[in-house]
Amino acid sequence: MDEIRGAESAEQARAALGRELYALVEELYPICRSITGDGVRKTLSILSRYLPLSVSEIASGTQVLDWTVPNEWNIRDAYIADQSGRRVVDFRAHNLHVVNYSTPVQAKLSLAELRPHLHTLPKQPDLIPYRTSYYQETWGFCLSHNQLEALPEGQYDVCIDSTLAPGSLTYAEYVLPGESDEEILISTHVCHPSLCDDNLTGLAISVFLAQALKRVPRRRYTVRFLYAPGTIGAITWLAKNRERAARIAHGLTLTCLGDASPFTYKKTVSGAATIDRAAAWVLARSKLPHQLIDFFPYGYDERQYNSPGFRIPVGSLMRGRHGMFPEYHTSADNLSFVSPERMLESLELLRQIVELVDGNVAYRNLAPWGEPQLGKRGLYKAMGGTDIPDLSLALLWVLNLSDGRHTLLDITERAQMDFRTIRVAADMLLAHNLLGELSQGD
Amino acid sequence: MDEIRGAESAEQARAALGRELYALVEELYPICRSITGDGVRKTLSILSRYLPLSVSEIASGTQVLDWTVPNEWNIRDAYIADQSGRRVVDFRAHNLHVVNYSTPVQAKLSLAELRPHLHTLPKQPDLIPYRTSYYQETWGFCLSHNQLEALPEGQYDVCIDSTLAPGSLTYAEYVLPGESDEEILISTHVCHPSLCDDNLTGLAISVFLAQALKRVPRRRYTVRFLYAPGTIGAITWLAKNRERAARIAHGLTLTCLGDASPFTYKKTVSGAATIDRAAAWVLARSKLPHQLIDFFPYGYDERQYNSPGFRIPVGSLMRGRHGMFPEYHTSADNLSFVSPERMLESLELLRQIVELVDGNVAYRNLAPWGEPQLGKRGLYKAMGGTDIPDLSLALLWVLNLSDGRHTLLDITERAQMDFRTIRVAADMLLAHNLLGELSQGD
Amino acid sequence: MDEIRGAESAEQARAALGRELYALVEELYPICRSITGDGVRKTLSILSRYLPLSVSEIASGTQVLDWTVPNEWNIRDAYIADQSGRRVVDFRAHNLHVVNYSTPVQAKLSLAELRPHLHTLPKQPDLIPYRTSYYQETWGFCLSHNQLEALPEGQYDVCIDSTLAPGSLTYAEYVLPGESDEEILISTHVCHPSLCDDNLTGLAISVFLAQALKRVPRRRYTVRFLYAPGTIGAITWLAKNRERAARIAHGLTLTCLGDASPFTYKKTVSGAATIDRAAAWVLARSKLPHQLIDFFPYGYDERQYNSPGFRIPVGSLMRGRHGMFPEYHTSADNLSFVSPERMLESLELLRQIVELVDGNVAYRNLAPWGEPQLGKRGLYKAMGGTDIPDLSLALLWVLNLSDGRHTLLDITERAQMDFRTIRVAADMLLAHNLLGELSQGD
Repeated sequence: MDEIRGAESAEQARAALGRELYALVEELYPICRSITGDGVRKTLSILSRYLPLSVSEIASGTQVLDWTVPNEWNIRDAYIADQSGRRVVDFRAHNLHVVNYSTPVQAKLSLAELRPHLHTLPKQPDLIPYRTSYYQETWGFCLSHNQLEALPEGQYDVCIDSTLAPGSLTYAEYVLPGESDEEILISTHVCHPSLCDDNLTGLAISVFLAQALKRVPRRRYTVRFLYAPGTIGAITWLAKNRERAARIAHGLTLTCLGDASPFTYKKTVSGAATIDRAAAWVLARSKLPHQLIDFFPYGYDERQYNSPGFRIPVGSLMRGRHGMFPEYHTSADNLSFVSPERMLESLELLRQIVELVDGNVAYRNLAPWGEPQLGKRGLYKAMGGTDIPDLSLALLWVLNLSDGRHTLLDITERAQMDFRTIRVAADMLLAHNLLGELSQGD
Repeated sequence: MDEIRGAESAEQARAALGRELYALVEELYPICRSITGDGVRKTLSILSRYLPLSVSEIASGTQVLDWTVPNEWNIRDAYIADQSGRRVVDFRAHNLHVVNYSTPVQAKLSLAELRPHLHTLPKQPDLIPYRTSYYQETWGFCLSHNQLEALPEGQYDVCIDSTLAPGSLTYAEYVLPGESDEEILISTHVCHPSLCDDNLTGLAISVFLAQALKRVPRRRYTVRFLYAPGTIGAITWLAKNRERAARIAHGLTLTCLGDASPFTYKKTVSGAATIDRAAAWVLARSKLPHQLIDFFPYGYDERQYNSPGFRIPVGSLMRGRHGMFPEYHTSADNLSFVSPERMLESLELLRQIVELVDGNVAYRNLAPWGEPQLGKRGLYKAMGGTDIPDLSLALLWVLNLSDGRHTLLDITERAQMDFRTIRVAADMLLAHNLLGELSQGD
Repeated sequence: MDEIRGAESAEQARAALGRELYALVEELYPICRSITGDGVRKTLSILSRYLPLSVSEIASGTQVLDWTVPNEWNIRDAYIADQSGRRVVDFRAHNLHVVNYSTPVQAKLSLAELRPHLHTLPKQPDLIPYRTSYYQETWGFCLSHNQLEALPEGQYDVCIDSTLAPGSLTYAEYVLPGESDEEILISTHVCHPSLCDDNLTGLAISVFLAQALKRVPRRRYTVRFLYAPGTIGAITWLAKNRERAARIAHGLTLTCLGDASPFTYKKTVSGAATIDRAAAWVLARSKLPHQLIDFFPYGYDERQYNSPGFRIPVGSLMRGRHGMFPEYHTSADNLSFVSPERMLESLELLRQIVELVDGNVAYRNLAPWGEPQLGKRGLYKAMGGTDIPDLSLALLWVLNLSDGRHTLLDITERAQMDFRTIRVAADMLLAHNLLGELSQGD
């Protein structure tokens, strides 16, 4: 009965965690974020309730690598109203209605004059597209194609009550120290307005991963959680943290982690980094449908981390692959497009990947001549002639391959076992002095 | 209308080029060539109307590597006549009727005495085989098996009016200088008598490739076109040009390029040379049916170039694979076995392969820290949130992989794009100083 | 007629050899072997009739690597008798009935008291299992599950007339000297009692392989045949022969070579050793069904040889894979489970593998500039224009790839020919001074 109650409460705890993940997405959804401005600040202040974030503000005009931090954009209201004063397109109804980074405008225009500023998706006539114009000053509205088709000719009052002026770009970090100052980077873009899967799921999962890892007593790597606007945010962080960047040993960008597509892992540029192998292994052992895709220089901030000057091995974990599902960058990426269960599953997989990377050490067999006699140490069943259990086989695998040239991930891949079994076997051998850390010369 | 006219005249120009290729094959077809003698000289003099060839004559008896230049062979007439004086086998009807390099003979023989000197193809009873005996002095006739079966017993007058005497071996070269003294070699065997596909198509296509490349303003590599008899010709050229041979960076032998088989590319001995990858890439992107085959030490002069002392990476481009189609080395390899359209297609593919090898440079990204801001340089569309066009993606690929370790072919293979798109992207980045040549240290 | 008679007597000789292999298995079958004791000694004395074995005795208590040579075990009789004195389980009927290494016992026990000492196979109720307890002192009986089910409650007389006392561990070697003091090791475990496939077939085939190799006039490698108890025997030999162990270049363990399963080759830990490639090649060319399996650190003495301290490349040749067929380690592994024909086939394959490893030399082409003129040396057919026979092609392959970096096995794999054809071609080229041994600098 106790066991059943234990299982029930574990299941209940999982369900509760799923609800918490989803509740955070719900809270963040209405905010109009951009690459700068108060929407990002408000978002980071909500995340600060979960983690003690360290927030940085970088002034507009600052040179960051090949780029310049742009003016800060804020928006209060925007609409297109007909002559009766009725708002036919209204920012207050959906913040996707305004092209992100639109300059202020106040004008009376005919529909014909307005048209070049209107963006629709003729093939998805019910959806509002998401459009931005960060680096070329313009303004515009996004609306469903059906909405556009229904607009009668005539004059319209157009208003965008925004400001684009010197200010700053905002990003935040949370650092969980480990035994080493080498780092694992979890990077999430924070710049998208009311789009759930891309990327409120990434934000929520990153925050709850940090909470979970904080509860683990020992950790080899320092783990850095970065919440920054896409492209310019990662570039700004890299510009300000060149030395730290050189200490990032493994990384992931997170996005689109709540939709119903199979998992997608996008590899680093080398395609053979530890993070690539760890993600591939965890996904394969999960038996969940998934695809591994090669790196390509488009997507999210893995582009910047993997650039030839930095070459930081950062992969990308997603469910639906960005740009490849019809809801992507439209108003259909809403609260019903993501689910608590799928976010929870994403979080659990992500946690396993980070655990594997953190636990992936190479040891040296201290009794390498033949097999050590495990029986006399109580590490091996006494009666010969029958099958060998998994843990015994794991002990033999770790002993055989711990020659200084194989990590536990190498051994896991060879043994085709769960990483955790291999890790437990290594810990048992360490406790019996059959395994040691590598010394300098190894 | 102009565009349609433009397309029409491009199509007409292609058709005209196809006719020119075929006309050259027609003109060369009747000549009786061998590894030495006037047939080769007459052939090279016809090619000289297209290209200013430099012709070499190497005296019989000259030591060339492990070989000796043989005596020169010339033939004026040959026949087997019956007692009524009727020529039942006649060199003037087809030069395949005489075993190439036959010693002179003038005799009256019974059919039984004649038989050991008669060669037929019992399984292809209508065709005359092609036979040679360069290094063992003998004589013989080739005829269709039906012809042989129809010969009545009796006495025959046998005549081969040939000479085999000290003279010289002839080969010719045409060199198109490039920026570097490293070379691309296009090697074609010139020794076959009246056989069209093998190798008058190779000769014609080589000549027209040279004409096309001559019209290109800049070229990285020097391109050398070699027209030499098979085996002994390549060996003679290698013996006389050891230093130049060491500067050949890429090469191709050409043969069987007018028949109706799918394309065949035979790799160099390493199987991973640039020429191998370039040919594989162009063939794959062409969507034409084709096969890639591994090197084997039999075939044409790629054997000599790939020998362990030289190891020059020379592949072989063919349609039908030599020795593998029924018309090979028979009288069926005639003018109707090859077509203008197929020769033209071969020429176009070949040209793309040479262009790729010549354009395959490794550059260094001069703004390698993150992605450079392409938008401010007018290299990138302004409006975010939509799909990326091919050329923009090509720019990002070239930037990401130009770390000194990847050539444009490497990038092309990773990006799965046309080489020309990648080449254009690299040229745009070079023009904007975002890409530079590798320096010594790279 | 002579040829037919020759073929008949070759076939008869093969059949006779099969019968000899089987007869040796028959003779060895009744003996109760263990990891020490008189059963092993008697077995080795029978093998000594075939080969002049050198026998070693290592005293109990000797430290060997991480292990200690155990006390010697001998057994004379054992039974469970009912109150009428009838032996319901009798060691004299089958030596599997006693748990190998059982301590002596003489007691009257109820069935309930006896049960913890009784081992059966409930899923294979007719078979007696094979059980051992070498390193934990206990005693027990093995019987069929049906036998156990039929035992009435009541009192039983239990007797194991064994001794477990200081003595020695016995192993034997036979060394066939070669030109080099580098060695090929053929290792066979000698410790199993009445089990035929595992491993009397291994013992018989090893002995007859030694006889066959002895008749070959020249051999590059010294070949060492080791007959030792599993695990502790290999560990003892390695402990006593560290320097010799370092000279073992290739090795095989032999087991399960007479059953009806397809062949199984288990690779060395690197998976790419010469022995791995040789076994894979011979099996592939044999056209016999087979599987290649990756190394795993469980099985027979390949575990010890492949341990990280030694890393001796020792693979394992089997038919049925140990532990994977239902007769394994049961009384069903009897004389009817193995056949003369299958043992003979195993011996022949094994011999080809050893021949390939021994003949796998790298040479240097002494005429590497172009192809040497084979015709003038009588190594090549004179008449050009036709197909090339296998041996001619083999000559060209050996010449092309003998650049100091390819062994004859490399060449065999590239040429996709029988190793023997390549070996013959190399010998012809050696005889004509076209090939030479590698010098120091190569």
